[in-house]
Amino acid sequence: MQKGLLIVVSGASGTGKGTVCKKILSDLPEVAYSISATTRAPRPGEVDGKEYYFLSVEEFKSWIADGKFLEHAEVYGNFYGTPLNKIEERLNRGEDILLEIDVQGALNVKRKCSEGVYIFLLPPSLEELKRRIEGRGTETPESLSRRMKNALAEINVGLEYDYVVVNDSIENAAEKIKAILTAERLKVSRNEDKFNFDGGF
Amino acid sequence: MQKGLLIVVSGASGTGKGTVCKKILSDLPEVAYSISATTRAPRPGEVDGKEYYFLSVEEFKSWIADGKFLEHAEVYGNFYGTPLNKIEERLNRGEDILLEIDVQGALNVKRKCSEGVYIFLLPPSLEELKRRIEGRGTETPESLSRRMKNALAEINVGLEYDYVVVNDSIENAAEKIKAILTAERLKVSRNEDKFNFDGGF
Repeated sequence: MQKGLLIVVSGASGTGKGTVCKKILSDLPEVAYSISATTRAPRPGEVDGKEYYFLSVEEFKSWIADGKFLEHAEVYGNFYGTPLNKIEERLNRGEDILLEIDVQGALNVKRKCSEGVYIFLLPPSLEELKRRIEGRGTETPESLSRRMKNALAEINVGLEYDYVVVNDSIENAAEKIKAILTAERLKVSRNEDKFNFDGGF
Repeated sequence: MQKGLLIVVSGASGTGKGTVCKKILSDLPEVAYSISATTRAPRPGEVDGKEYYFLSVEEFKSWIADGKFLEHAEVYGNFYGTPLNKIEERLNRGEDILLEIDVQGALNVKRKCSEGVYIFLLPPSLEELKRRIEGRGTETPESLSRRMKNALAEINVGLEYDYVVVNDSIENAAEKIKAILTAERLKVSRNEDKFNFDGGF
């Protein structure tokens, strides 16, 4: 049986990672979402245990101490982490797992799991990126300016990923990511068993 | 501008390379087909300058002497070759070029053009492969038996390709190859210019 795909979708703050991932999960019910943990405050509509595990700083630190994270990082003064959640075990069972992680966290995962599929989302333009960050209504002028500056720095990190998708529309971006997943499943390196030619593939 | 894709579709004799390639070319008019040359006799319906350049052994040897081939090889006593046809120039202009080559020839091209996309087609089963080779009606019992034996040997070579697609139906195989091409165009290594963030991607 083919091992599941570890799909990591990342991108600078404000590129719409969350929305694109939701669309993929709704289109591909066979893909499981691995929920991240964070100490940041929930945004309107976000539910604990759905978008994130919302933890206090103390809880987060005890998860670190208990070895519960694949990776964790501090971003804009908040902690973010990817819980292990038996990821390796689930991949070996053939389950595809989608992780939505910030730029820094995704590279930490890439160092540990090189066979994952690392997809970097880009906003269609600088103007649109600014509009998206402002549009959240959760930023102060200072945090907005800091986020824009950091977004530009983060975009360069995209060069270390496997694929780059411009998020010009949710539908387009999701279609492209679905093509990437189809192609990845067809890689010879994931299908060596097919060459044991015994009458069927 | 993004360089065009060099798309190489190969597979053991009788896996249906030609039919699948025709479907891709009809679905994707932006992809150009690069015609191979051969000294084998045309099969019913094959046209010189369309499916192949049908050359005499003398003509083929003079093409070799004139440096007109990217690669050439002898298969089942016939010569096959991939004419240069300004491939590199056309790729640099952004043109996608599809090559349908036998297993041996494709690996020769791979050694020269590692950035190409190497796709290996598999038949759905041994039985189906036999049916397809017989179905041509162009084989003697000896050549059929030799082709089957060689097909099994050729299939192992598929491990050196990038992608493997089972040709269970022309439509399925073509859809999968189209997803591969979409994904390949999204590779970071083909899109480094997108990270020169100057207001648009």
